[in-house]
Amino acid sequence: MIGTSAFLGIPHRRIATLLDAVAPEPGSSGRSAESEALEARFARAVLSTMIEPGDTDAGALMGALGPIEAARCVVDGVDAADLLARVGADPSSARQRSRLTGALERWRARGSAEAGARALEMAAHVHARLLAPEDAGWPQGLPSLGAGEPVALWVRGDPTRLERLDRSVSLVGARAATGYGEHVAMESAAGLGDRGFAVVSGGAYGIDGAAHRAAVASGHVTVAFLAGGVDRLYPAGHSDLLRRVGDTGLLIGELPCGSTPTRWRFLMRNRLIAAVSGATVVIEAGHRSGSLNTAGHAAEMGRPLGAVPGPVTSPASAGCHRLIREYAATCVTTVDEMAELADPIGAGRDAGYPEGADPDSPDGVVLSAVRAGRGGDPEDLAHTTGLASRHVVAALGRLELAGAVRLTGRGWEAAP
Amino acid sequence: MIGTSAFLGIPHRRIATLLDAVAPEPGSSGRSAESEALEARFARAVLSTMIEPGDTDAGALMGALGPIEAARCVVDGVDAADLLARVGADPSSARQRSRLTGALERWRARGSAEAGARALEMAAHVHARLLAPEDAGWPQGLPSLGAGEPVALWVRGDPTRLERLDRSVSLVGARAATGYGEHVAMESAAGLGDRGFAVVSGGAYGIDGAAHRAAVASGHVTVAFLAGGVDRLYPAGHSDLLRRVGDTGLLIGELPCGSTPTRWRFLMRNRLIAAVSGATVVIEAGHRSGSLNTAGHAAEMGRPLGAVPGPVTSPASAGCHRLIREYAATCVTTVDEMAELADPIGAGRDAGYPEGADPDSPDGVVLSAVRAGRGGDPEDLAHTTGLASRHVVAALGRLELAGAVRLTGRGWEAAP
Repeated sequence: MIGTSAFLGIPHRRIATLLDAVAPEPGSSGRSAESEALEARFARAVLSTMIEPGDTDAGALMGALGPIEAARCVVDGVDAADLLARVGADPSSARQRSRLTGALERWRARGSAEAGARALEMAAHVHARLLAPEDAGWPQGLPSLGAGEPVALWVRGDPTRLERLDRSVSLVGARAATGYGEHVAMESAAGLGDRGFAVVSGGAYGIDGAAHRAAVASGHVTVAFLAGGVDRLYPAGHSDLLRRVGDTGLLIGELPCGSTPTRWRFLMRNRLIAAVSGATVVIEAGHRSGSLNTAGHAAEMGRPLGAVPGPVTSPASAGCHRLIREYAATCVTTVDEMAELADPIGAGRDAGYPEGADPDSPDGVVLSAVRAGRGGDPEDLAHTTGLASRHVVAALGRLELAGAVRLTGRGWEAAP
Repeated sequence: MIGTSAFLGIPHRRIATLLDAVAPEPGSSGRSAESEALEARFARAVLSTMIEPGDTDAGALMGALGPIEAARCVVDGVDAADLLARVGADPSSARQRSRLTGALERWRARGSAEAGARALEMAAHVHARLLAPEDAGWPQGLPSLGAGEPVALWVRGDPTRLERLDRSVSLVGARAATGYGEHVAMESAAGLGDRGFAVVSGGAYGIDGAAHRAAVASGHVTVAFLAGGVDRLYPAGHSDLLRRVGDTGLLIGELPCGSTPTRWRFLMRNRLIAAVSGATVVIEAGHRSGSLNTAGHAAEMGRPLGAVPGPVTSPASAGCHRLIREYAATCVTTVDEMAELADPIGAGRDAGYPEGADPDSPDGVVLSAVRAGRGGDPEDLAHTTGLASRHVVAALGRLELAGAVRLTGRGWEAAP
């Protein structure tokens, strides 16, 4: 299917090779793909070198033309008036023409087809994948086209873990965390992991780092959204930690490899953290902390927002108290309260459900095994039931919320 | 006007002498009073020896007959059926008859006219006063007749301070307080005092004691509601503190002198603490703390309820977090937030008000003096303005909330 033709001046054959190395699933793109699918993926890689996160002009262009034509317009150059006419807008509006001309110049100045090719090579070098909205693993809950949808996501780590975002909690907070805040972050991350939740955060010093670290240490999946390329492990002091997050969980960025984080990119990254998870919990935040930005995104998007209280004498908790007072954040004090915030429907759905549980569902199988005294740790249960251990962990989380099982000093047991 | 007649077997002359010694204002009762007013006051003293706080049967009887006839019925003895007929109820209802017979026996067994006379003597001995609902100083906000109105209040301390309850905050919390809780209680009490609020509490160990102690130490009025007689300074370890509260503020009890506190009386005392103040703030409380009872009364009566957050790792803050999560208590973290909770109308009313303030109002006079550089401390201002120092303190509190004055290292100054 791949001929000798080219797209944006890059031969299809080279594009196929580049995309093959960053395919989210083997065979999902690359040599075997239709040339239109191939061009669409490559267009996203190119546009991702050109467009800052949250650029609504770019969203409008992609919405009107699709990625392939949008990339052609920017790379090959097009007159703003012609473009306006093509998308059905008024080509004689000076204001619209001037705005679009400015956007085209801005995008063209930042990236290129060759920059897209280089970003793909750099991604392949760190075993990162290119994820597009049409891919199966694209996280639920991200902003849609027109509302700031990312052009693409760049992902390091086993892409099958992306489905874990469906049951996840974002734990965020101040870089200048206190011992109290870090303690709460670590207990929360480990406890949420025990209940089958993936922990999402931003990889920063302080609360973020404590949350990732505890999740990794207790063998749970954790996801770090980075403000730059996923090949740039920022901050430098967290490069070892972030490497381990990538090995056992996921590193995800909206910017292509090679991009450095900027203040704007941190703020835009925060919207992804708020968007992908079932709930956002702020553990510590000063009165004007950047974590309040993440919280603001969560509230704007109607996502459940929690804040952990702390001593009123601690400035590091002032932002959390402000969220509770002024933004109607839920005061959360335990892992169970965080889990309930993220999955109230699950908690409701599962209440009283174990009795009539489908014995062939993962929950039914796990519950039967636990009731038969085959509890212990999730690995034992995975062995006994033949289920993947992440399905066992998720089932235990749901069963615990439903009050059917509980974690004791001897491992998982049926609740009395 | 006082003849040789008697009431409940006690000569009017003796009643007049007894009441004179416990009159809230000179001449407001006693020898100069009409015999009906005299009998009503004495009836309340007698009934207060017979009726447990919150007894709704007693409230119904007082409502139907008034205190004089109610006391006569109980002391002289009356048939339940006759009494039911007198109050317009069905004398043939066996259930009602049996309930009223039980109540009459219960009351007669507990007190007597002579016990009322003794309670008055004991009150006079500690310079306590008898306060009735018809007295000018009767606190606003107390439950009304039929809703558990106290038969009487017994008050130690200058009764003119009773009007300070009109601008007050109740600070309550666990006996098993932590250093954090006591610190917050002390800062809150001192700060509320500085803003012209009286601090109400229950005299107990822990949070209550810290609040009273800080108010006394910073020269502010504080009011302790006791669960027994105001001659019983309970707990014993707080007898010195409570004596000082009585000297500079008020000790108030619903039970007559000589009464010991019981579990029921603590719970009923809590309803008074919640009722008399502009807001109730729980500073620390365990998950099942008695302070939650006070908070429950406040919520039931529609009074603003605040809770101070603390570390989620501290069991002493668990009750506060529960109030915020489950009872929609306001999360309060500063003295200003407590003041706003207690007096939102005042804060609103005073916003921007100083410019057009009536120059002859206390606030206008105080503001003029402060603006003329005659600020300093409230005693100086009282001297300069000729106002009572408690009016100066209240005016400063309102003016500070309105942003017109501020407290600096050099005393009170006009805000820039």
